[in-house]
Amino acid sequence: MQTSVKVAVVGASGYSGEELVRLLIAHPRAELVALTSRQLAGQTLGSVFPRFAGMRYSELPFINSDVESVVASGAGHVFLALPHGLAHEFAGPLLRAGLKVLDLSADFRIKDVSVYEEFYGEAHHEPELAARSVYGLAEVYREALKGADLVACAGCYPTSILLPLIPLLRANLLETDSIHVCSLSGVSGAGRNAKVDYLYAECNESIRAYGVPKHRHLAEIEQELSSAAKSTVLISFTPHLAPVTRGIHTTIYAKPRRGVVPEQIGEALAGAYAGAQFVRLLKGGGLPDTKYVTHSNFIDIAWRYDARTGRLVLLSAEDNLVKGAAGQAVQCLNILCGWDETCGLL
Amino acid sequence: MQTSVKVAVVGASGYSGEELVRLLIAHPRAELVALTSRQLAGQTLGSVFPRFAGMRYSELPFINSDVESVVASGAGHVFLALPHGLAHEFAGPLLRAGLKVLDLSADFRIKDVSVYEEFYGEAHHEPELAARSVYGLAEVYREALKGADLVACAGCYPTSILLPLIPLLRANLLETDSIHVCSLSGVSGAGRNAKVDYLYAECNESIRAYGVPKHRHLAEIEQELSSAAKSTVLISFTPHLAPVTRGIHTTIYAKPRRGVVPEQIGEALAGAYAGAQFVRLLKGGGLPDTKYVTHSNFIDIAWRYDARTGRLVLLSAEDNLVKGAAGQAVQCLNILCGWDETCGLL
Amino acid sequence: MQTSVKVAVVGASGYSGEELVRLLIAHPRAELVALTSRQLAGQTLGSVFPRFAGMRYSELPFINSDVESVVASGAGHVFLALPHGLAHEFAGPLLRAGLKVLDLSADFRIKDVSVYEEFYGEAHHEPELAARSVYGLAEVYREALKGADLVACAGCYPTSILLPLIPLLRANLLETDSIHVCSLSGVSGAGRNAKVDYLYAECNESIRAYGVPKHRHLAEIEQELSSAAKSTVLISFTPHLAPVTRGIHTTIYAKPRRGVVPEQIGEALAGAYAGAQFVRLLKGGGLPDTKYVTHSNFIDIAWRYDARTGRLVLLSAEDNLVKGAAGQAVQCLNILCGWDETCGLL
Amino acid sequence: MQTSVKVAVVGASGYSGEELVRLLIAHPRAELVALTSRQLAGQTLGSVFPRFAGMRYSELPFINSDVESVVASGAGHVFLALPHGLAHEFAGPLLRAGLKVLDLSADFRIKDVSVYEEFYGEAHHEPELAARSVYGLAEVYREALKGADLVACAGCYPTSILLPLIPLLRANLLETDSIHVCSLSGVSGAGRNAKVDYLYAECNESIRAYGVPKHRHLAEIEQELSSAAKSTVLISFTPHLAPVTRGIHTTIYAKPRRGVVPEQIGEALAGAYAGAQFVRLLKGGGLPDTKYVTHSNFIDIAWRYDARTGRLVLLSAEDNLVKGAAGQAVQCLNILCGWDETCGLL
Repeated sequence: MQTSVKVAVVGASGYSGEELVRLLIAHPRAELVALTSRQLAGQTLGSVFPRFAGMRYSELPFINSDVESVVASGAGHVFLALPHGLAHEFAGPLLRAGLKVLDLSADFRIKDVSVYEEFYGEAHHEPELAARSVYGLAEVYREALKGADLVACAGCYPTSILLPLIPLLRANLLETDSIHVCSLSGVSGAGRNAKVDYLYAECNESIRAYGVPKHRHLAEIEQELSSAAKSTVLISFTPHLAPVTRGIHTTIYAKPRRGVVPEQIGEALAGAYAGAQFVRLLKGGGLPDTKYVTHSNFIDIAWRYDARTGRLVLLSAEDNLVKGAAGQAVQCLNILCGWDETCGLL
Repeated sequence: MQTSVKVAVVGASGYSGEELVRLLIAHPRAELVALTSRQLAGQTLGSVFPRFAGMRYSELPFINSDVESVVASGAGHVFLALPHGLAHEFAGPLLRAGLKVLDLSADFRIKDVSVYEEFYGEAHHEPELAARSVYGLAEVYREALKGADLVACAGCYPTSILLPLIPLLRANLLETDSIHVCSLSGVSGAGRNAKVDYLYAECNESIRAYGVPKHRHLAEIEQELSSAAKSTVLISFTPHLAPVTRGIHTTIYAKPRRGVVPEQIGEALAGAYAGAQFVRLLKGGGLPDTKYVTHSNFIDIAWRYDARTGRLVLLSAEDNLVKGAAGQAVQCLNILCGWDETCGLL
Repeated sequence: MQTSVKVAVVGASGYSGEELVRLLIAHPRAELVALTSRQLAGQTLGSVFPRFAGMRYSELPFINSDVESVVASGAGHVFLALPHGLAHEFAGPLLRAGLKVLDLSADFRIKDVSVYEEFYGEAHHEPELAARSVYGLAEVYREALKGADLVACAGCYPTSILLPLIPLLRANLLETDSIHVCSLSGVSGAGRNAKVDYLYAECNESIRAYGVPKHRHLAEIEQELSSAAKSTVLISFTPHLAPVTRGIHTTIYAKPRRGVVPEQIGEALAGAYAGAQFVRLLKGGGLPDTKYVTHSNFIDIAWRYDARTGRLVLLSAEDNLVKGAAGQAVQCLNILCGWDETCGLL
Repeated sequence: MQTSVKVAVVGASGYSGEELVRLLIAHPRAELVALTSRQLAGQTLGSVFPRFAGMRYSELPFINSDVESVVASGAGHVFLALPHGLAHEFAGPLLRAGLKVLDLSADFRIKDVSVYEEFYGEAHHEPELAARSVYGLAEVYREALKGADLVACAGCYPTSILLPLIPLLRANLLETDSIHVCSLSGVSGAGRNAKVDYLYAECNESIRAYGVPKHRHLAEIEQELSSAAKSTVLISFTPHLAPVTRGIHTTIYAKPRRGVVPEQIGEALAGAYAGAQFVRLLKGGGLPDTKYVTHSNFIDIAWRYDARTGRLVLLSAEDNLVKGAAGQAVQCLNILCGWDETCGLL
């Protein structure tokens, strides 16, 4: 175990990259040695992001987004905070240069490259890396992550859906053909992209669904649910955009298998997350509220059994930029490095 | 057909009552002759609601909330914009005095008084009025409304759920045991009540579910769905609070019956709403967005068939204060009076 | 007086153009015959703006933005809802073709073309039109507007500042060298432009000043204040961006001349706006709140005398898209046509 | 210097108290030993504030709000996060029991008790404590704070106004009779009080001024400005409510004395805040934006000289709950304890 490591963030100009920087500023063991961005090269962190002025790393300059520069920075671990499709180009060369890679994009999450190509509409150039990557959902793949050199960090919506469901599917408590999911995300999930659809005046006082009925995240959600259930699981999933900057709220309907009693639901969740400090199973009358998890790496989960319909309602809330992206990635780094999983995150 | 009628609004201090006033100001055939409120009696409309200063009725004073005062005002039609439980006291005496009543509360929506008592936790004192009332969902009960003297205006969530589903259930196109609904409402739905939960700083940057798993509106939703399906329909329904002032967005999952082809869905909806000017069936790639319906009496509806899962996704958006409350009530008034249904609303 | 006129909107794809359409839909005397937009030509109003689907004009197609097409539409009055600099190209040819022009941009507001060029950084090609235009602030230029063929509609910030100050300067009640203004605007004021600065996640939970210390609107503000005072008036003005879609709130500090008593302030305002139905002078303890004026053509004005400092505080609120843009333009149209000033606006 | 101290928070149920807890959770040297609240006694921190569940102190129970309980907790330093008027009752007994008191209310900020009584409308029962307190504005009173036992932490608006102005007044650069201030605050500044005025639906899409023309904070603002200027300073100040949860933005107009050149402004500010890590003087084209300071103890300050009017514009942004309340208080604690001023805050 190293007491500290040097890290780089490739593509630090978006919201996930910025959030990674925020977390790394507070991290006692990870030293940020390089930030890359094609547009921002030469400018300092503090001048690009005024919120970081006067803080650790505020004078660190952005460098160009190329593999050589990253390797030259001395970083041993690299976060890729790039749009999907671009991480392909970086991961291979960085791995061959001996660096470990934590990718926040979707590029290496899908084991079956044909599924990737179906959902993302693009050819995948590194199928062997997709096969070798470890899915970066710490509470589920903790052991595998310890030895990983390529982490495909879980997506924001998938995290909010998988953590409530996986323990129940693993314990064989649910019918696998009756899962319906509604998720709501804040607008930062759309990235720092200049598009009319995400202007303030278009999102304020607006609630809308999108990506109906086949959002890209279904690929990884169903891959992981199927793996947990040991059978193919198809779900209905509808993402919605709500006027908050941060936060995802997910409501899941599922049907317990015949004979399952509600207590088993609670026990399966409690058992799965007994040592998971970032998963909070709400007790009593509590229901998840995004405002209780924003700016933190927590995911809050609650459930109710509806005796009228015989269905289970599972609810979760997380910060899409933290537990759904940058925090998740740092949590994975902590595991890779053998540190306490909460290091720098609590 | 009268060319104009005199109307009163009882309980005009809340958001629905205020919205009713806004609509009545613009109505060419309804003359507002009385506004009541226990706390505001003696004050003028314009002084209580500065947005109405300088407009028609701005000098109209609030009067006390009692039956005698309303009858004395000369009003022939009375809107009750009161919390549930209170409309009970007003409807009977007003009807016996010969007035027609349009109630915006839940008090007369539930035909089976025991269901009302189960969901609302209170005794119902006017079961024969509940039995006699017409459910105020204009697109479904247009004919019955023509002769009604007591209208139980449909609730905000129910409107957003019933309008997409009823034509499909009437046409026997859906499995009735597989309906799952997620709705999101703006905060005005919680009323103008001084509660910490609805403070700006508690609702901003917050998304949360509530009333899980048995929200009160289920009573009327299932009553009307069952009526349309001619069999008992139980559904899963989860309301969420989102940081907008106005608007409800609803996403519904349902399973078409075996043999139903997607075109039948579109045809059933188009057939049901051919002459319904406030129901907009979105074409092409359009999905409902609350910002397109706020401040209007429209409800926008879209649907998608998900071939992967064999399920139907229905989506709707409305303004909870207009099509979900005050606009619906005015639409019902127009029908009662034999006027064009859009009078004052378009 | 014509009982009705045909109108066109050039540049109807932005927020002001869209708001104009909303107002024209409700206008009983103006018939919308043409909508232009370079990008949207060929599409119908209802398909471009889903909020207008199913309403009057929803099937009206956008046509190309050129003078010939507008003239061919038969419109007698044309609203130009274009970015500044572009209205130059349209106004002259339209006027020569005998149409009347109501321009919502800044192009013809500044009488002294060198001031225009100083503040807007571009050459002005139609100085004689700038000289001949009437400034479209109905409450101040009502008489001149009656015979105008080119109206330079007042800007959003200027309207909120000029209406409180002009009566006091005309009455010689204020020191002219001590006016300080702070204004706050909603984000729709920045237009429907895809820029990162106006993304939801950049504007939400954000308050910021901009254009310090020399915002472009100073040119017309000081021109009109100087005209009212009959001497050169320079002011301090700071606009701020606040996270609302609509609304401008303005707070003005001014110093009454020696000997002026507070009652004179109230009398000057009341006298100036005695017949002005869209100017509401708040009484009692009321202070302007943008939520009371949004979606309306009202401007609310209040004032307080601060005996501690001997200064006057004037406050106003308006909807930047209505009284600050499209509503103002329709009000001017009503005056041009000899109709009641509130026609279609109340 | 003690390496650590035990602290208590009296009145921890409001927004400032909650924010104090958030900061103390992250503080390496302050150990939170008691939380008080009349309504919440007996409940744990994590159950009352779900955002703190699973974190340090989440099992700490609230105790009753009385002096004996606080003393019995072993705390050596006590934060009072109470409404003004209540801190009076606690400070004296706690001081006599040997504890040090950091009061976040206005109770001990005003040296001249008659001014307190004029602005707060209540009798002051502890004039000698008001006289002895040190005003808790760390950048200005750092030396005096080192030996203080009663700190009257600066208010939220005052902090945003005083930090830009005090260095300029001390350096005699400004006319003292021409200061005009506009401030905008988020709604958390109104406290966690169930009042209709602060409901989401009343604050969203709303901008409004309040407390015109004599807001209570003027008392401490003018006291401190006068102290800096060594002469009586009266200012105009208008606070506004904007729809954000956190953040204050302040715009100040002032007139440099004859002969002062703009460079002197920059030098005075730079000199005053050379070692002040929480004061960021923005360079280049940067202007303060509340989103860059929320959740941090920074205050961002910029200025522009307006050659047209000969006036100075000063702008600042801070988080009202951090630099304007809880962060300021922790910064003062750090100074009292002889620790690095940024301990636990950066």
